[in-house]
Amino acid sequence: MTKAIYPGSFDPVTKGHLDIIKRSSKILDQVIVAVLENPRKIPTYGIEERVKMLEMVTEPYPNVKVDYYKGLLIEYATKNNINIIIKGLRAMSDFEFEFQMALVNQKLSPSIETLFMMTNNKYSYLSSSIVKEIAGLGGDIRSLVPPEVHDMIMAKYKL
Amino acid sequence: MTKAIYPGSFDPVTKGHLDIIKRSSKILDQVIVAVLENPRKIPTYGIEERVKMLEMVTEPYPNVKVDYYKGLLIEYATKNNINIIIKGLRAMSDFEFEFQMALVNQKLSPSIETLFMMTNNKYSYLSSSIVKEIAGLGGDIRSLVPPEVHDMIMAKYKL
Amino acid sequence: MTKAIYPGSFDPVTKGHLDIIKRSSKILDQVIVAVLENPRKIPTYGIEERVKMLEMVTEPYPNVKVDYYKGLLIEYATKNNINIIIKGLRAMSDFEFEFQMALVNQKLSPSIETLFMMTNNKYSYLSSSIVKEIAGLGGDIRSLVPPEVHDMIMAKYKL
Amino acid sequence: MTKAIYPGSFDPVTKGHLDIIKRSSKILDQVIVAVLENPRKIPTYGIEERVKMLEMVTEPYPNVKVDYYKGLLIEYATKNNINIIIKGLRAMSDFEFEFQMALVNQKLSPSIETLFMMTNNKYSYLSSSIVKEIAGLGGDIRSLVPPEVHDMIMAKYKL
Amino acid sequence: MTKAIYPGSFDPVTKGHLDIIKRSSKILDQVIVAVLENPRKIPTYGIEERVKMLEMVTEPYPNVKVDYYKGLLIEYATKNNINIIIKGLRAMSDFEFEFQMALVNQKLSPSIETLFMMTNNKYSYLSSSIVKEIAGLGGDIRSLVPPEVHDMIMAKYKL
Amino acid sequence: MTKAIYPGSFDPVTKGHLDIIKRSSKILDQVIVAVLENPRKIPTYGIEERVKMLEMVTEPYPNVKVDYYKGLLIEYATKNNINIIIKGLRAMSDFEFEFQMALVNQKLSPSIETLFMMTNNKYSYLSSSIVKEIAGLGGDIRSLVPPEVHDMIMAKYKL
Repeated sequence: MTKAIYPGSFDPVTKGHLDIIKRSSKILDQVIVAVLENPRKIPTYGIEERVKMLEMVTEPYPNVKVDYYKGLLIEYATKNNINIIIKGLRAMSDFEFEFQMALVNQKLSPSIETLFMMTNNKYSYLSSSIVKEIAGLGGDIRSLVPPEVHDMIMAKYKL
Repeated sequence: MTKAIYPGSFDPVTKGHLDIIKRSSKILDQVIVAVLENPRKIPTYGIEERVKMLEMVTEPYPNVKVDYYKGLLIEYATKNNINIIIKGLRAMSDFEFEFQMALVNQKLSPSIETLFMMTNNKYSYLSSSIVKEIAGLGGDIRSLVPPEVHDMIMAKYKL
Repeated sequence: MTKAIYPGSFDPVTKGHLDIIKRSSKILDQVIVAVLENPRKIPTYGIEERVKMLEMVTEPYPNVKVDYYKGLLIEYATKNNINIIIKGLRAMSDFEFEFQMALVNQKLSPSIETLFMMTNNKYSYLSSSIVKEIAGLGGDIRSLVPPEVHDMIMAKYKL
Repeated sequence: MTKAIYPGSFDPVTKGHLDIIKRSSKILDQVIVAVLENPRKIPTYGIEERVKMLEMVTEPYPNVKVDYYKGLLIEYATKNNINIIIKGLRAMSDFEFEFQMALVNQKLSPSIETLFMMTNNKYSYLSSSIVKEIAGLGGDIRSLVPPEVHDMIMAKYKL
Repeated sequence: MTKAIYPGSFDPVTKGHLDIIKRSSKILDQVIVAVLENPRKIPTYGIEERVKMLEMVTEPYPNVKVDYYKGLLIEYATKNNINIIIKGLRAMSDFEFEFQMALVNQKLSPSIETLFMMTNNKYSYLSSSIVKEIAGLGGDIRSLVPPEVHDMIMAKYKL
Repeated sequence: MTKAIYPGSFDPVTKGHLDIIKRSSKILDQVIVAVLENPRKIPTYGIEERVKMLEMVTEPYPNVKVDYYKGLLIEYATKNNINIIIKGLRAMSDFEFEFQMALVNQKLSPSIETLFMMTNNKYSYLSSSIVKEIAGLGGDIRSLVPPEVHDMIMAKYKL
C-alpha cells in the first residue's frame, strides 16, 4: 500500500495546493496532508484554522486525511508508516530548495522517498505569499483560493 | 501611443535603474517611473527622497515622469491608461520572481503587458542592496550610483 | 512610432507564437513577424510555406506584417527602421540563450532594444519541435497549433 | 494498485538508472522499465541489447518488468493501464526538459501523472553519454555501470 | 606564492566547509579561513566560538590559518597581500549570489580573483542553516559536522 | 608550485578565452592552455591553426604555454604533474555542464581540482559559436576576437 504525506505550511491553502492533493489522491492509496507547526515562524493563520481549511477543501476525497506535526518530517513519517513524501514543484527556485530538503531527508531516513509532482501550469504563479500580498493590497483573490475557504482567508483582511 | 510604467522600490536609485529608464524612454512614447510605497517594508530612504532622487536623474529625459503609488500596481496602471509594465532583468533569480509577478498581473489584468529589458551587462552585478551593503561597510559607491544623487545617498552613512 | 520585429524560425508556427503576436500587436504600433531563412539549417517547412502559414494566422491583425530575412537580424532591423526586437520567453533555457543573443545584438547595434514577453502559461510547454515530435509519433496536434494551419502542418506527416 | 513506467533510452543503463529502479520498486506496486525505440536516433546499443542489459540488472526485483515501445509514451501507458510515469532528476537542465515533457503528457492524457525522483547524489554526474564519452577515450567505467553489464558495454569499445 | 582567503559566516562550520578547506589547502600555498563579523546579523555562535571551532578542525593543515574580519572583504585581502578568494559552490542559488559578489569584488579590486570550487557532492545538501534546523528539531547532526565541534554546536540546543 | 591547465576547443579563440588566460596567469605559477583534439567532432579550424592562434595571443605571458591533447583530460594532467583545471563560467548553462564534468573528473582523479573563474562580464555573451555565427552572416567580429588572430579567423569566411 502506498501511504504518502503532503507536508506544508498551507498558510493559507491555495488552488495550487488543492490541485496537488487531488492528483496525488488519484494515483496513490492514501494521502495525509500534514500542516507543519513551525515554532520559529509566526503564521498568519493558526494551526487549527489551517487544519480546518484543509479539511473543508479535501472533504470530497475519501483517501485524503488532514493532520499536523511538529519537529522533523521524517520522524512523523516513520511513526505513521509513511514511505512517500509528495512535493509540488512550480519553478526553478522551488526545485533548488526542495531538492536540498529531499537530500537531507534521504540522508536522515533512506527508506522514505520524496516524489515531486509538477504544479498544474494554470497555477504556476501561485503561492500562499502571493495570495496574502494581493489580499493585503485590496485585490480580489477569488481565482487563487478554493471557494470554500475564501471568506475564512479574507477575514484577516476585513476591517 | 505607448505609455509604460517602470515600477520599483528605488531605495536608492542605481546606475542600473537609470540605464533601463534611458533605454526604455528612447523606444517608447512615455515612461512613468513609479516608486512603490510598501506599507510592510521600512525603506532606507523616505518616499519623498526617492521621488526627489529619481526626478534629479531623469531630468534630461522629457518623456519620463516620476510618481509613486500604494496598493496594486495594475490598479495604478489601469487608472492612468498605462498598458505596458517595464522590468529590468539581471539574472536568473530576478527572472524567477519577475516571471511569477508578471503571471499574477496578467491574471489580474490581461490587457496590461509586462515587457522585460535586459540590464546592461556593465551593471549586471548591481542592486540597491549591494549599494547599501558597500556604503555601510565604508566602501566607495561612486561607480554604482548616478553622480547627481551620490551625496544624498551617502548622507545616511555619514557620521 | 514603435515598430517592432518578432523574428523566428516558425517551423511551424504554434499557438504559443500566435499568442505573442496578438499580445504585442495590441501594445505596439507595428509588428513585423520575420521568418529567418537560415542557410545552415534544413527546415521542415520551406520559407514560402512558413510565410504563408503566418499570413493566414495573422490576417485578423491589421498592424502585423509578415516578412522573411537572411543574414544578421540587426541589419534587417536597421534597414527597415525597426527599433524593437520582441522575443517570447518560456523557460530558463530560453532565457539563457535569448539573453546571450540580446547582448550580442546590443553590442552590434546599441540603438535597437530587445523586449521580452512571457509566453502565456497555457503554452509554456509548447515549441515547434514538440509539435513535430508529437505529429511524427502519430499524436493529435489540434490543441497545439492554430486551426487555420493544422492541415498544412499535417501534410508532411500524412502517408 | 500503483503501476508505474520508467521510460528511457538506457543506451546503456547506468548505476544512476538502476538506483531509480530500485528505489521506485520499493515504494510502488509494479514498475515497468520501458526502452524507447526512437526511429529518428541511431542508438549505440540495439533495442534487444538494451532490453537484455536491463533484464540482467533488474533480475533481483520481482515487481520490475522490462519492455520496449515505439510511438507516444502515453499511448503505451494507456494501453497497459499505467497511471504513473517515473522520471529521475539530476540537475537543472534535466528539470527544464522533463518539466516540458510532463506538461505535454499531461495535456495529451490528464489521467497519467509524472512523478519525479531525485537521482542519488552519488550519481548526480552520471549519464549514458558520459559513460560512452569516457569508454571511448579509454577510461575505466567500472564505477559508473552495474557490474553485470560492464563487459557487454565495453564490447563496443574493444579493438 | 598563492595566498588565498576562504571567507564565510561559519555559523557553525560544517563538513562541507571543511571539505573545501582541505582541498584548497592541497593545491594552494596558503589558505586563510576568515570569519566575517557582520554587524547587521546576529549570529548563533559568537565570533570567538566560530574562530575556535575552525581552529580545532583545521589543526591538521599547517598551511591553513584562521582569522576574522569586519568591513569589506577586499580591504582585508589587500592589507594581507591575498590575491585569491576561494568560494564553494553547491547549487544554482549559490551560483547566482556568489557570481554577483564576485563581480562586485572584481569591480572594487581588479587584482584579486575569485576562484570557485565545487562542493563535494556528498555534501551538496549541507549548509549551516540546515544543521541548525535539524539540531533545533531534535535531529542527529553527527553526519553533518566535524566530530571535534559536535558538542560545542549542540551546547546551544541542550536543555 | 601551482601548475594549471586551461582546456578547451578554442575553435577559434575569443577575447573571453584570452581574459581567462590573462587573469589566471597572474595568480598561478604556470598555466598550460590545452586544445582538445576531439576525434568525434569536426572543428572549423585545424589543431595546428588553433595552437598557432593561441601561441600568438599568449606570447606576452611568459608563464603560459600552449599544447594540445587527445583522450581524457585527467590523463594528460596526471602525466604533466598538473593539479588544477581552470574553467571559465559565463552563465547558468555553462555551470550545469561544467559542474558535471568536474564531478566526473573528481571521481576519476581525486587529486586534481577544478577551479572556476567567472568570465569578465564584458564578454559574458561571447563564445566561439557566436563568433562563427556572426562571421558567417557577414557581421564584423573585430570586437569579439583578439586583433592578432582576426585575419586568420576571417580567412575561412572570405570568398
